Amino acid sequence: MSEKKYVYSFEEGNKDLKEVLGGKGANLAEMSSLGIKVPPGFTVTTEVCETYHKNDKNYPQAVRDQIEKKLNELEEKMGKKLGDTHDPLLVSVRSGAAASMPGMMDTILNLGLNDKSVEALAEKSNNPRFAWDSYRRFIQMFGDVVMEVDGSEFEEILENVKDTVGAEYDTDLTAGHLEEIVKRYRAKIVELKGVDFPQDPREQLQLAIDAVFNSWHNYRAKRYRELNNLKHLIGTAVNIQAMVFGNLNDNSGTGVCFTRNPSTGENKFYGEYLMNAQGEDVVAGIRTPKPVSDLETQNKVIYDELVTVCDRVEKHYRDMQDMEFTIQEGKLYILQARNGKRTAAAAVRIAVELVKEGVLNREEALMKVDPNQLDQLLHKQLDPISKGEAEVVATGLPASPGAAVGQVTFTAADAFAKTQAGLDVILVRIETSPEDIDGMLSAKGILTARGGMTSHAAVVARGMGTCCVAGCADISIDEKGRKFTLKTTGEVVKEGDFITLDGGDGTVYLGKLNTQDPELSGDFGTIMNWSSEIKRLKIRTNADTPHDAKVARRFGAEGVGLCRTEHMFFEGDRIKAVREMILSADLEGRKKALAKLLPYQKKDFIGLFHAMEGYAVTIRLLDPPLHEFLPTSEKDIYELAREMEVDAGTLKAKISDLHEFNPMLGHRGCRLAITYPEIYDMQVQAIMEAAVEVSSECPTCGRCNPIVPEIMIPLIGSSREFSILKQRAVVIADTIIKNAGIQMDYKIGTMIEVPRAAVTADKIAEEAEFFSFGTNDLTQMGCGFSRDDAGKFLKEYVAKGIYESDPFEVLDQEGVGELMKIAVAKGRSVRSNLKVGICGEHGGEPSSVEFCHREGFDYVSCSPFRVPIAKLAAAQAVIRERK
Amino acid sequence: MSEKKYVYSFEEGNKDLKEVLGGKGANLAEMSSLGIKVPPGFTVTTEVCETYHKNDKNYPQAVRDQIEKKLNELEEKMGKKLGDTHDPLLVSVRSGAAASMPGMMDTILNLGLNDKSVEALAEKSNNPRFAWDSYRRFIQMFGDVVMEVDGSEFEEILENVKDTVGAEYDTDLTAGHLEEIVKRYRAKIVELKGVDFPQDPREQLQLAIDAVFNSWHNYRAKRYRELNNLKHLIGTAVNIQAMVFGNLNDNSGTGVCFTRNPSTGENKFYGEYLMNAQGEDVVAGIRTPKPVSDLETQNKVIYDELVTVCDRVEKHYRDMQDMEFTIQEGKLYILQARNGKRTAAAAVRIAVELVKEGVLNREEALMKVDPNQLDQLLHKQLDPISKGEAEVVATGLPASPGAAVGQVTFTAADAFAKTQAGLDVILVRIETSPEDIDGMLSAKGILTARGGMTSHAAVVARGMGTCCVAGCADISIDEKGRKFTLKTTGEVVKEGDFITLDGGDGTVYLGKLNTQDPELSGDFGTIMNWSSEIKRLKIRTNADTPHDAKVARRFGAEGVGLCRTEHMFFEGDRIKAVREMILSADLEGRKKALAKLLPYQKKDFIGLFHAMEGYAVTIRLLDPPLHEFLPTSEKDIYELAREMEVDAGTLKAKISDLHEFNPMLGHRGCRLAITYPEIYDMQVQAIMEAAVEVSSECPTCGRCNPIVPEIMIPLIGSSREFSILKQRAVVIADTIIKNAGIQMDYKIGTMIEVPRAAVTADKIAEEAEFFSFGTNDLTQMGCGFSRDDAGKFLKEYVAKGIYESDPFEVLDQEGVGELMKIAVAKGRSVRSNLKVGICGEHGGEPSSVEFCHREGFDYVSCSPFRVPIAKLAAAQAVIRERK
Repeated sequence: MSEKKYVYSFEEGNKDLKEVLGGKGANLAEMSSLGIKVPPGFTVTTEVCETYHKNDKNYPQAVRDQIEKKLNELEEKMGKKLGDTHDPLLVSVRSGAAASMPGMMDTILNLGLNDKSVEALAEKSNNPRFAWDSYRRFIQMFGDVVMEVDGSEFEEILENVKDTVGAEYDTDLTAGHLEEIVKRYRAKIVELKGVDFPQDPREQLQLAIDAVFNSWHNYRAKRYRELNNLKHLIGTAVNIQAMVFGNLNDNSGTGVCFTRNPSTGENKFYGEYLMNAQGEDVVAGIRTPKPVSDLETQNKVIYDELVTVCDRVEKHYRDMQDMEFTIQEGKLYILQARNGKRTAAAAVRIAVELVKEGVLNREEALMKVDPNQLDQLLHKQLDPISKGEAEVVATGLPASPGAAVGQVTFTAADAFAKTQAGLDVILVRIETSPEDIDGMLSAKGILTARGGMTSHAAVVARGMGTCCVAGCADISIDEKGRKFTLKTTGEVVKEGDFITLDGGDGTVYLGKLNTQDPELSGDFGTIMNWSSEIKRLKIRTNADTPHDAKVARRFGAEGVGLCRTEHMFFEGDRIKAVREMILSADLEGRKKALAKLLPYQKKDFIGLFHAMEGYAVTIRLLDPPLHEFLPTSEKDIYELAREMEVDAGTLKAKISDLHEFNPMLGHRGCRLAITYPEIYDMQVQAIMEAAVEVSSECPTCGRCNPIVPEIMIPLIGSSREFSILKQRAVVIADTIIKNAGIQMDYKIGTMIEVPRAAVTADKIAEEAEFFSFGTNDLTQMGCGFSRDDAGKFLKEYVAKGIYESDPFEVLDQEGVGELMKIAVAKGRSVRSNLKVGICGEHGGEPSSVEFCHREGFDYVSCSPFRVPIAKLAAAQAVIRERK
Repeated sequence: MSEKKYVYSFEEGNKDLKEVLGGKGANLAEMSSLGIKVPPGFTVTTEVCETYHKNDKNYPQAVRDQIEKKLNELEEKMGKKLGDTHDPLLVSVRSGAAASMPGMMDTILNLGLNDKSVEALAEKSNNPRFAWDSYRRFIQMFGDVVMEVDGSEFEEILENVKDTVGAEYDTDLTAGHLEEIVKRYRAKIVELKGVDFPQDPREQLQLAIDAVFNSWHNYRAKRYRELNNLKHLIGTAVNIQAMVFGNLNDNSGTGVCFTRNPSTGENKFYGEYLMNAQGEDVVAGIRTPKPVSDLETQNKVIYDELVTVCDRVEKHYRDMQDMEFTIQEGKLYILQARNGKRTAAAAVRIAVELVKEGVLNREEALMKVDPNQLDQLLHKQLDPISKGEAEVVATGLPASPGAAVGQVTFTAADAFAKTQAGLDVILVRIETSPEDIDGMLSAKGILTARGGMTSHAAVVARGMGTCCVAGCADISIDEKGRKFTLKTTGEVVKEGDFITLDGGDGTVYLGKLNTQDPELSGDFGTIMNWSSEIKRLKIRTNADTPHDAKVARRFGAEGVGLCRTEHMFFEGDRIKAVREMILSADLEGRKKALAKLLPYQKKDFIGLFHAMEGYAVTIRLLDPPLHEFLPTSEKDIYELAREMEVDAGTLKAKISDLHEFNPMLGHRGCRLAITYPEIYDMQVQAIMEAAVEVSSECPTCGRCNPIVPEIMIPLIGSSREFSILKQRAVVIADTIIKNAGIQMDYKIGTMIEVPRAAVTADKIAEEAEFFSFGTNDLTQMGCGFSRDDAGKFLKEYVAKGIYESDPFEVLDQEGVGELMKIAVAKGRSVRSNLKVGICGEHGGEPSSVEFCHREGFDYVSCSPFRVPIAKLAAAQAVIRERK
């Protein structure tokens, strides 16, 4: 029987041996086995870690033997020996489990240094400071990790010496100072531990390996595995790798390179380097690095080798690579190769070109583009050069992407008026409310001082594709005084001053910056076409106006998943009729007011049906509580009372009557219609009359499919609620169809947004013909978070890992998703062809889209500007499923 | 093959034939077969209804033959014939399906009258007015139900005649007028339908039976079956029964009687009667009925027969009976016998005595008492005579039972001060808030103008067992002016005036009424003991103070299921420390303030542990949002600022900072502890130090079981939230136990009140040792109803059958219950011995208690005064399950 294999040289492994070699070990092995020159080394397997702990921290002799053997091979490969007094080999000792556990376990660098080899290193590098600093760092790490001396002991010595010699930074210390520090470190170790720091490099190595294994069971590593559900791991591997230095002499150097241009995607080798330098020097910016093309002139052999390696690595990993390399005494080493970060434009171009080059197939290419990134391509952007030179004066939340330049205004009415007069404006508000809608529609950009990513301003702006920076705490707004102040500098910005917003990162600038229009290049179109071919989910849009619907159609929306009719209630004269209805004392009065709204609503729906050219249109009946349509400030109340010719006291009494402690859980949605059925009656009439009218026009236009209006009743909690409201709607709809003398199909369904509806979905589906998950409200009620208030603590929740992400941004699959699964299963148990969709903001978030695909949804619906994102995500979901 | 049986005489059926004879038919048959003299008759089966509709509204000939045969038998039995010109038989024709469908189908009375028999009836009864009125009613019903003439046509004629003759009421019409009306009715029928009202009684009967069958498919009946899920019913039966009249002559009469006294339960025949009278006359109060004992003198034969019948019926149904009887020409008929309504005292006494008499076993006896009724026995009551004579001046919601007499006060501080001074006071407030707690504790009763059954005042009062009338819209309170006005009369009640409240029916009286103390008689104790023997569920109590806990122990509570620690934060000086904590800018400040609270909390817990004598005590850590501890009115804010020596502006800013749009879904419960862990740290310390202290005293007292504190973390939504907080609590608890040098077990669990927690209960149960359902909040979030706001529309929801009851009063088993089932199943899937309970207000509501039993809960917890109710309900649940 051959001996069990406990130690693998990098050449012996490959990426499939992750369980044995750990992630890092497998990756190093994969590169080595490709013939890429990584600094050589070997890996002690995860199994040894398990054995070590099972055997009271002892190894089989075979482990020791195999380590010794691999170490000898390593010395041979490098032509250096550990602890050599002429040209010593230094190694790093690093942990690496099968799953990534960043920073949880220990690492030791520069192992192999001792009193003798440090002198050899000094001489060899002709850089005593470098040698002594390496030794100092090694002892500090070793003392802390292996010998368990509290790190602060070393820090104290270091600070003490710095004080004594008047050094401000570590870099001010000379070789002599560092030698002194090494001496004191060792004395401290002896003082505290009774033994000296070991001089024998092989003993150093064995102790370091033990320490890495021991760190597997330290508190934070155990906790991390618990929290991340990594209980199946058996232990960590240990990677021992030769250290290489780019600053040994002028025949050494270091650099970073990309196999293609990460900004544009152009297929051209790209990067920079410095000779006689360490990685830090390239980053620190003290010396200016040279473009990697210069290397061709400086050292053709190395350059050619680098180009060949890059090419091989890109082909192997089949993606653009970001690589770090070091040249040590004329030898090239690749320290790291990974898929390179890139802009959205580059991602799209690279993916398409890799298919053209025959490297990837379409499915693989689609997986290379991050759907979230596409947002960058759909909006006006700040010119990068202009942005790079400008000073950020305030930062808020990146609530809705794009760039906007305009003159500051402080009221929605001004924004509207000035836009009509041909000016570009930025609407600046403490927070926005539904009454601001006209101004928000006109403004180029919106800046608010309060509110989160799901505040009114943020939600509306994203829906319209308008740039928005929300919750910008760096400014204080004086709306009356028509100015705002930058908190940092005290500078005052007045009405009419120009500012620039970047909604992509939440930054604010004074004056006008240059912008550039989105380029929906051919490559973008290609990615969208491929996505459409592969995806199963339909992608619909949330659109309240024909304008939104048209934008969404351009982005490829296949229907409207949510038309929020309340937004139509705020425009111009309509709000008067709405208020008249609310203030009516009786049914007759309400009906009279509703009759005024009917023609508006009908016109809206006609526009929407036309814009969607026969694609499905789901219209949600009125949802918000009535008090949202009434003013709140004393002044506005008096104004309204005058305007409506009612007594201010009566108006106030009505407003106070409608006040709710928790409006989120109050008298809204279908509950309004149980109390005031005439509201939904009017809306159903408007929808059906519009559908009939558009249908009867359509045979002549030849563009449209038959219209099948989908009427959506919001906030259903009980099947009986639905049944009552459906019955009324059916009577109205059937009468209109019958009177028109035509055939028309229509559907009546509901939003699932109340947890009770999710768990009684089987009963609701007996009558409801479709479900659309309103995940915004389902998250509010399911998790018990008020969207308006939770900003105060949700950040902390995410920081502490209680939620992986803000559940209002990324669907909480574990909790809210579980409610959705229950609802789909129950719903389809009684109606197998139940149409299921999502129309919360999650409908445009990639991981949530994938969830919807996996759970057998028919469609997702999102704001127009997220349609391409959802489309790509839906295609990726199919591809992932096929794997 | 014998002919199929389509028609049953009453003697042929029994109560088990409900599916065939319908509920009413089976009941009549059961009584008949007992030999009880119900007016004889027969039933056409439900199957005939089905056949009729399947055969295009035709019957097999056998049906007609069998009806004729039974009709002949009926005539023989009664010695009268249908349509007879000397002594005509009249019958009623009534529907009756297997399940009760009250008022959904049609009924016809007095069938058999025609132009001839009406004269015979007039002569026989010597009462022409009676005869013609009977005929008039018959034609009106027959015309409406059978001949489909709109009922308003007859009403119009009736009104017209009344106008003409100057009659104000129907009773003002003479026989002559009625004869005229009959004539006009028939003319109208001919005019509208082209045929006359049929004179042949057998034809009348056949048409009436058809009409009843047809009514099975009328709209409201179909809708009723749909809404009540009665789809399995095949049709209605038809009952044809002889009419009997107590007002034929002086040898006739009518009465009602109870087999035992319904007020006291005493086993003594009880009732009243009138000779030569109809049922209406007994009820109407025009003539004064005589006690039934007088019948013994008046007609010994009938009296003896009645007593015998009563005795037989009570023995048969094994319960106290409420019976209606009619004497027609010296013959006794029983019209109805049903279990009699009774007071709680009577219910308890009857149940116990029926066991003593050997009629019932204990289980059966327990089923005879309505748990909800027990509440009457546990509180001080108004003396019925005093109450009967007093005038109700206002009515509100019966928020907390009992009676209270005292002087009106308008502030909590006054209530407290006056009580200290030895006065009895009633606290009258627009609504109460947590700051009023001291005043509420002192007052004899509480009256509020706003708020529902689950308002602050109502919840707190029920918890304390204090009488409370809430949401009394009949008064308008002027708190500043220290008076309130009765809206009906305008009368003003001032501070210091005496009023009396009845929390059992929500009535308010001026002045002092007499009250009587609750009598927890021996029978009550017996019922409780039997319940304890049978029930499986443990009954715990919600108690925030040692006083509550002691009350609950007297009522038989087996532990504390919920101690709300926040109530402890409001008392006296504590609120200052709480506010100091909230206003502290840093951790140190908060810790300092919390240190002041620690001794109070510890003392509270010591008292609680002592009171519960080793029974389990579950303590919930702080739950409400911090803003509840701060004042809201401008005046109070300035006062507090002065008191705390902080700037009013700073205080206002803090309050505005803490403001939430939906506090229900805000920063509260465990979320506070994620942000400010020091709060729970202090509470855990107080709990464990108290437990250790009481434990170490206990070996000497010999009363107590080992104390196992149960620490409950509220508002958990995620397993990671729980895990973080549990870890901290364990460290503190273990340290305290270790330092005390003793052994102590403790449990850490959670409330399940967030829907997300319910559907991820498997993950939470990995660490949580018990679940307690907080069904108040689970209902709020699960149904999406704010308890503070939903009052506005929930009544309508119940009226429309969307919810069967207010889900805050009776657990919504279909929806919220489904979430609970999911949670229990998931929780026990990972921790089979997971302890499960309920601590929402539903824990004391009988149908909810039964749900908890059925779903395998370990305990329910309710307010002290509902412990006996829950106990009986828990026993009944076991008994129902055994059946």
